[in-house]
Amino acid sequence: MINIKENEKLNILNHSCAHLLAHAIKHLYPNAKFWVGPVIEEGFYYDIDLGNDVIREEDLPKIEKEMKKISKSNKLIKRIELTKEEALEMFQEDPYKIDLIENMEEGTIISAYKQDDFIDLCRGPHMESTKQMKYFKLLKVSGAYFKGDSKNKVLQRIYGICIEKEEDLTNHLNLLEEMKERDHRKLGKDLEIFMVSDLVGKGLPMWLPKGATIRRILQRYITDKEISLGYQHVISPSLGSVELYKTSGHWAHYKEDMFPMMKLDEEEYVLRPMNCPHHMVMYKNTLHSYRELPIKIAEIANDFRYEASGAVCGIERARAFTQNDSHIFCMPSQIKQEFKNVINLILDVYHDFGFQNYRFRLSLRDKNDKEKYFGNDYLWEKSENELREVLKELGVDFYEAEGEAAFYGPKLDVQVKSAIGHDVTLSTVQLDYQLPERFELTYIDKSGEKARPVVIHRAILGSLDRFVAFLLEETKGILPTWLSPVQVNIIPVNNEYHLDYCKKLKCQLQKEQIRVEIDSREEKLGYRMRESQTKKIPYTLVIGDKEVESNLVNYRTHGSNDTTSISIIDFIELIQKNIQNHK
Amino acid sequence: MINIKENEKLNILNHSCAHLLAHAIKHLYPNAKFWVGPVIEEGFYYDIDLGNDVIREEDLPKIEKEMKKISKSNKLIKRIELTKEEALEMFQEDPYKIDLIENMEEGTIISAYKQDDFIDLCRGPHMESTKQMKYFKLLKVSGAYFKGDSKNKVLQRIYGICIEKEEDLTNHLNLLEEMKERDHRKLGKDLEIFMVSDLVGKGLPMWLPKGATIRRILQRYITDKEISLGYQHVISPSLGSVELYKTSGHWAHYKEDMFPMMKLDEEEYVLRPMNCPHHMVMYKNTLHSYRELPIKIAEIANDFRYEASGAVCGIERARAFTQNDSHIFCMPSQIKQEFKNVINLILDVYHDFGFQNYRFRLSLRDKNDKEKYFGNDYLWEKSENELREVLKELGVDFYEAEGEAAFYGPKLDVQVKSAIGHDVTLSTVQLDYQLPERFELTYIDKSGEKARPVVIHRAILGSLDRFVAFLLEETKGILPTWLSPVQVNIIPVNNEYHLDYCKKLKCQLQKEQIRVEIDSREEKLGYRMRESQTKKIPYTLVIGDKEVESNLVNYRTHGSNDTTSISIIDFIELIQKNIQNHK
Repeated sequence: MINIKENEKLNILNHSCAHLLAHAIKHLYPNAKFWVGPVIEEGFYYDIDLGNDVIREEDLPKIEKEMKKISKSNKLIKRIELTKEEALEMFQEDPYKIDLIENMEEGTIISAYKQDDFIDLCRGPHMESTKQMKYFKLLKVSGAYFKGDSKNKVLQRIYGICIEKEEDLTNHLNLLEEMKERDHRKLGKDLEIFMVSDLVGKGLPMWLPKGATIRRILQRYITDKEISLGYQHVISPSLGSVELYKTSGHWAHYKEDMFPMMKLDEEEYVLRPMNCPHHMVMYKNTLHSYRELPIKIAEIANDFRYEASGAVCGIERARAFTQNDSHIFCMPSQIKQEFKNVINLILDVYHDFGFQNYRFRLSLRDKNDKEKYFGNDYLWEKSENELREVLKELGVDFYEAEGEAAFYGPKLDVQVKSAIGHDVTLSTVQLDYQLPERFELTYIDKSGEKARPVVIHRAILGSLDRFVAFLLEETKGILPTWLSPVQVNIIPVNNEYHLDYCKKLKCQLQKEQIRVEIDSREEKLGYRMRESQTKKIPYTLVIGDKEVESNLVNYRTHGSNDTTSISIIDFIELIQKNIQNHK
Repeated sequence: MINIKENEKLNILNHSCAHLLAHAIKHLYPNAKFWVGPVIEEGFYYDIDLGNDVIREEDLPKIEKEMKKISKSNKLIKRIELTKEEALEMFQEDPYKIDLIENMEEGTIISAYKQDDFIDLCRGPHMESTKQMKYFKLLKVSGAYFKGDSKNKVLQRIYGICIEKEEDLTNHLNLLEEMKERDHRKLGKDLEIFMVSDLVGKGLPMWLPKGATIRRILQRYITDKEISLGYQHVISPSLGSVELYKTSGHWAHYKEDMFPMMKLDEEEYVLRPMNCPHHMVMYKNTLHSYRELPIKIAEIANDFRYEASGAVCGIERARAFTQNDSHIFCMPSQIKQEFKNVINLILDVYHDFGFQNYRFRLSLRDKNDKEKYFGNDYLWEKSENELREVLKELGVDFYEAEGEAAFYGPKLDVQVKSAIGHDVTLSTVQLDYQLPERFELTYIDKSGEKARPVVIHRAILGSLDRFVAFLLEETKGILPTWLSPVQVNIIPVNNEYHLDYCKKLKCQLQKEQIRVEIDSREEKLGYRMRESQTKKIPYTLVIGDKEVESNLVNYRTHGSNDTTSISIIDFIELIQKNIQNHK
């Protein structure tokens, strides 16, 4: 994704295109008054007062056409410098510009840019001619309060983008379209995965039955896999005493990301942002011998973080979420082996999900901002080196990133390149000498002495919520069979003749743990078959006379028009094989 | 369990026995000074200042012996009435009694009771002779602050009980012993089910791996069963806006049982005590047709309630807990059928857990305290009658209890008689016309008009935490195989010769989803076999030369010394059959 604001050339180009937009508006809506037209990451916008006129999406092509006309006419863009008095005189009929000018210091030289019959205040710089803005697109129109204050008048804000080459613009617009289609909030709504409600609260998404099914499959999948590898799953409460977070250091280093404190009688509690402190306390519950190590405490755990209401985004960034978390307590001599084990688990899981486009990132502290981090230089360098060594020994491809460490230690993050080009951290493994110190954790070593274990924090699927958001955006909601909330959709051609057979079939499939629905609505067959596509159900069975008579099923897979007739037993086997192979 | 305080006769008997205890103490510890000796539910206690002397558990028999001596000597107990001045004179050497007397109003007639050489202030009444306190037992000794104030001196508090008949006392003491053995807090610690920590907080138990395994089995069991019955499981956040609870009425009717409010920017949030409001909002997310009803929204949901720190009790009564909850949205005409379905589900689940000792309780509102409840008389009477009718139609044995309803509607509770005689509510089904009103829920009825659905709240296992506490107390921790955290314990006779075979066997069993451990500690075989009993593991396999050579397993079940040799395949089948049959 191009960041227009950060690209110097595109910044100027889009700035000039905002003027081109205003110029065209002035031609089409002579009474228009203009507030500001800044460049943003996504291009530019202009806030305009149209009086009683309204611009709608369908008006944008007309405006674009006028812009093209002005562009083609190749008007020179000239800089004019004015005193404050001259500027006030020149823009006397535009109250918005007067507002701007009046807020400027006395004695300032004010610049304006003129192209043909249009002049606008602007710091510049600008392009030299309107001709240079050739490949642009108006993206949308919305309302925006004057100066962002809800007590003020609503202006019309028109968004656009301008790029130098036609091909780049086309690619960019395609990517925008793709992003809109893949947006997990849209897919989450269309596919009934989750919902949000202002009454429940901001950043508190609720998982609808279909979404909860995906969550359940994921939770059971990762829990069972971890248990088979010797992880010990626990359940700990979603809150803890403030004292707990003072001990862990979160209260000093992480408080602003936490929910506010709750006072119960004389006690102070807070919702947990992470599970580490609880797991530390659980480790400390009994004495441990070196023979027991590593001890891997794992949990599907609810966590809560304060996010500004403007920053929350569907299930990708919420105030309440659920982590696939674990803390491995081991001897220093076991660090390398445990890191290898975790990396192998990550590779195994990614294989099951078919992820291929990922890289390991060694996340180090920012040496110029040591205050952000716990502990001393010696421990940081020791642990950073240890991680680097493990990665080299494993022969894993990795890169290093300063300033990306956790406050308590360096991390190994797995960065996945998403379908729309985002760099997403899915998994993380973190080395920590600090928390074992703070909680005074010990084990009895071979010589009978007390020793300090090391803690490895790790998350494989990470936040399950964010993971599902990622899955939806990657697959456009076309989930593989094993993850699909509904795996089979049965459509009777005619309810009167075929519904009974469909119901029997449904029972048979459900007994084999296959998730199945019948669409017996009184709608045309074609309509119901299209809906099965829209709902992105992997297998659609159309049941008519032939199937009932022959005791067969006739299936088509999602996205294909080919149909296959097989026996019910073979069909069950086909689905079960998919599930088993994570297809 | 006898409530001494509420039984008039036993109340007097125990009061007199407290004097008998003080009398004996005075003989054995002449410097003892006495504060108060009240009757409590469990019997009586006396708070005593022994100066530098200390009474330990092992001293209690000596004191009992002295009490028996005084009892046998058949001393008459005489009431004496005194003016305040006379009392101050009589007890001048006892600062505690002086404290008591000085706090009495001028002019009060103060009574004291005298038996032989012992006299004590007391309102009475008392028994007539020390001989009547024949069957008593001193139960324990602990420290207690004078007047309950931690700034004051610690007195010694001796607890005891007195009952009229020897047999009743024996039964009572046996029951106390039984209760101690069955106490889920003791079992939970011994069997590593859960832990508590002051650092994490009061009433916030943490489930250790073995406990979390039980929880996971229960959650999957009930979730899968509910899904097969058409319930739609969802996942909603553990908190909601204060506005949500104002809408539901919890803020007005239930606030004092909730956690305190948290302010985020301008928004107010609170941890949820129940899930109803979230499920109402989820129902309201889309339009519903009568054809879709009943809609059964279910959740394994975390809830939070304020409990005084003195009221919390292990996992039975905690501030954070997890409910097996559901809300059924149906048409008024479907109420009876849905109630029947829920009752059948309850009977089915109880069968799986082997519960037999239960009764249905129809819980009605207290008509003399209408303010406690929502809504009008008409709706209450209507819904109470409907429940009564359903129970009658089903021919289920039930009784009625006024004042036990929820604030929003009448309930059908299932009361289970516990092994120690407690009456426990396990499941509950509640009819609710109020919440659909408050949330303005609708469906489109057959005639195309908007209509109001009814909500049935129901919990089958109830709070999973409390359910596990109940299971532990019922079974003394000897869980059936399907629920046991460790199902099979493999003990190699000799690590050198047999450990490899044990490891292979473990892998083989784990592949079949059997939960298995190896005890290869360098301890004697007998010791490890006893530990397998203490840990209450259903199957113990002892593996020696014979088993390795013949490729067999030799098992004994918990509580039995009989051993059986069978093939590995037969053993796997045996366990799997147990699991399948919930044995």
